[in-house]
Amino acid sequence: AQPAPVVAPISAEQQRNVERLRNAALESDLAWDIVEGLVTDVGPRLAASEAEARAREWSAAMLRRQGFSNVRIEPFTMPFWDAVREEASIVSPSRQPMVIAALGGSAPTPEGGLEAEVIRFESLAALEAATSAQVQGRIVFIDERMTRTQDGSGYGPAVAKRGGCASRAQARGAAACIIRSVGTDTQRVAHQGGSVRQMPLGTSLPVAALSPADADVLGRLAQGGAVRVNLNIQVEVRDEAPSGNVIAEIRGRERPEEIVLLAAHLDSWDLGQGAVDDGAGVAIITAAAKLIRDLPRRPRRTIRILLAGAEENGVFGGREYGRVHGSETHVVAAESDFGAGRIYSVSTLFNEDALQYARAIQRQLAPLGVNLGNNTTGGGADVDAIRRTGAAIVDLNQDGSLYFDVHHTPNDTLDAIDPEALRQNVAAWAVFAYLVADSDWVLTPPAPPAE
Amino acid sequence: AQPAPVVAPISAEQQRNVERLRNAALESDLAWDIVEGLVTDVGPRLAASEAEARAREWSAAMLRRQGFSNVRIEPFTMPFWDAVREEASIVSPSRQPMVIAALGGSAPTPEGGLEAEVIRFESLAALEAATSAQVQGRIVFIDERMTRTQDGSGYGPAVAKRGGCASRAQARGAAACIIRSVGTDTQRVAHQGGSVRQMPLGTSLPVAALSPADADVLGRLAQGGAVRVNLNIQVEVRDEAPSGNVIAEIRGRERPEEIVLLAAHLDSWDLGQGAVDDGAGVAIITAAAKLIRDLPRRPRRTIRILLAGAEENGVFGGREYGRVHGSETHVVAAESDFGAGRIYSVSTLFNEDALQYARAIQRQLAPLGVNLGNNTTGGGADVDAIRRTGAAIVDLNQDGSLYFDVHHTPNDTLDAIDPEALRQNVAAWAVFAYLVADSDWVLTPPAPPAE
Ligand SMILES: [Zn+2]
Ligand SMILES: [Zn+2]
Ligand SMILES: [Zn+2]
Ligand SMILES: [Zn+2]
Repeated sequence: AQPAPVVAPISAEQQRNVERLRNAALESDLAWDIVEGLVTDVGPRLAASEAEARAREWSAAMLRRQGFSNVRIEPFTMPFWDAVREEASIVSPSRQPMVIAALGGSAPTPEGGLEAEVIRFESLAALEAATSAQVQGRIVFIDERMTRTQDGSGYGPAVAKRGGCASRAQARGAAACIIRSVGTDTQRVAHQGGSVRQMPLGTSLPVAALSPADADVLGRLAQGGAVRVNLNIQVEVRDEAPSGNVIAEIRGRERPEEIVLLAAHLDSWDLGQGAVDDGAGVAIITAAAKLIRDLPRRPRRTIRILLAGAEENGVFGGREYGRVHGSETHVVAAESDFGAGRIYSVSTLFNEDALQYARAIQRQLAPLGVNLGNNTTGGGADVDAIRRTGAAIVDLNQDGSLYFDVHHTPNDTLDAIDPEALRQNVAAWAVFAYLVADSDWVLTPPAPPAE
Repeated sequence: AQPAPVVAPISAEQQRNVERLRNAALESDLAWDIVEGLVTDVGPRLAASEAEARAREWSAAMLRRQGFSNVRIEPFTMPFWDAVREEASIVSPSRQPMVIAALGGSAPTPEGGLEAEVIRFESLAALEAATSAQVQGRIVFIDERMTRTQDGSGYGPAVAKRGGCASRAQARGAAACIIRSVGTDTQRVAHQGGSVRQMPLGTSLPVAALSPADADVLGRLAQGGAVRVNLNIQVEVRDEAPSGNVIAEIRGRERPEEIVLLAAHLDSWDLGQGAVDDGAGVAIITAAAKLIRDLPRRPRRTIRILLAGAEENGVFGGREYGRVHGSETHVVAAESDFGAGRIYSVSTLFNEDALQYARAIQRQLAPLGVNLGNNTTGGGADVDAIRRTGAAIVDLNQDGSLYFDVHHTPNDTLDAIDPEALRQNVAAWAVFAYLVADSDWVLTPPAPPAE
């Protein structure tokens, strides 16, 4: 018989506190109130916009009100991009409007739009196999679907066309690129998202996503003969615009220099409210930390909340956090940026010895329906810079079956959040963060993972 | 014991044909192909627009191709109204955009929009109970929800505010009126619809519907303090614009002057594709009639298809049909204008003697899951003028549980139609229309029903 896996013991005080956190979280409306407040008082908050600045002020005030320490805004600047007009229509064989969203970083079209014949491809790979003679002067249309999965693994293959279409199409002389939205829904909405991160603005093509129903129509027409489309994208850009990270802490009672980093991002795309992406994450980590703050005594280590700015259009906040704080000791970093679906497993990136503590944490999460995942997790975009410094990583994996129905769409609104699942998230985050912060365990992997 | 209800016999030939129609319909893709073609080749088709004219040409060509007789377009003129801009945003306490739809007949705002404080009411009745002092200069917001029901009976109470808000608000000196969309969904879409039918254009207020998520935000803010909104609606209007009805027939072999009228409407609101409302109806009645045309011999009476123009913004096509054809003998009139949900019952407005024939029809529909409904039905809007001439009426009642999720929204697209339910509709319509057209029964009620 195999030896039973070793599970590190936790103290009686810790056991009491874990139970208190679980119970309190499952009855708390705090996370709901936070995300409801954010979408009501601020609404969408595009990276480096005036609304994102208001979101920082709103968050800092909220975090102070919740009693956190060292609440501060750490400003930085970055390029600003916004679509002020995004319209498309089929003009022949007959005229009808389409629902589109300009992709982040898209170049503008001429005023009034550009009109060209459409060439349809089944995939990005099919575009890559095409010649300039086929594509020259045309609007490339990549009509590829995304697969629905619990873990969101359908996203990677489907999103390749969002980042890759403009450059491949441009290399073949195309006029513009439109893609079937990266999403799993059939609603009449287009999914936003970055396309050409950090490229000098204006050097790429106009690039946009189509709603599924419009992709259906365009696909049928394009398979039946010549189709012409007018695409009109006007953008507002600024080289240097203000963004910032919002930080708050529960100072550790014994090892305050050791940091447990809980991250989410404050910015959002602007067709929706940014409720699911990532108002939910902001609410989950804040509510979890607040429950820990309400315990009889603070944990040994410092818990730090990072509400990162400008994740969506290039992870500017996460990188800036790494630049400023990368030399501090991060015991573990974790990010909540996958909506508010129920957490079904906990994955880690710990050293071998510490796996027994990962098992101890999972045992305390088991009553919430959380299984033990792998020890090879990568963490989210906003903690990537900290992972590279050698920090341990925890991922609380959420059910993402419905996430890509609303992700980056006008339907990313408060009603897309299930209050019950939100509470389960808070409970899991509170238990995990408390157990890590109140321990002496060295969790960091033996060496920084390979890039 | 009660006497068993009398069921009129049908002939052996009729029984064979009914079975043939049922089986053929349940395997036919014709209705799907028609609605797919309409939304692909034409798309949305606002009353009296250029697109509606294309829909008439498309339909006439399609009806000729299907082999119908006397295919013709009967033109008329009517006022044209279209919103060329429909935008709204909350401007204080903080700025955020809202998703709205201008309601049919809305007056325009000044260029750039009008800005005013919002006054929220729970219902139209609450607005009616308000004083001018409360409402004067404000934007009235009616924040009333709609109930989901199988038979669509939640629509009547909810839609009252759509037609009634502008006049009530105007009488109290309001600047404009916005309503929570008349619908049952929680998608980020606003539901279009007529507001001030047949009023002289420009004499009403600007009036718009809000998406549910935006109504949620606005409702929370308005209950928390003063809220200002900017509403920007620009419209295009023409006093006399061309619309028309499309008509096609299967001439009766014995009594061609007796008409069985099958109606649907060709126009649609323009945020969606008009797939469910009423592309589905167009497809159902056309496919059903085509199956009857394919029988070994034509029915005794004439089956006439009416694809009415301009239903949405005032039932112009239905009234015009009544004006031109009201003196002809309409044995029965029926309309398909409630999407493509499965038919669960057949209701009639027949004379007492003919109820045994209604029962005979229902017996033949029973294998499709269709029960016998009442004998007090009113028929749809486009056959109302013909009902008033004393025609008998048949309603094939569709499950409308999901209809008001997409009704008059951008989500009224082809994917909202269930192909299986569509076939069941065609089967029921083919059986009913054939049995009425191939009979000698006098179905008309004893006297025109009271208004
Ligand atoms: Zn995110
Ligand atoms: Zn995102
Ligand atoms: Zn209709
Ligand atoms: Zn309608």
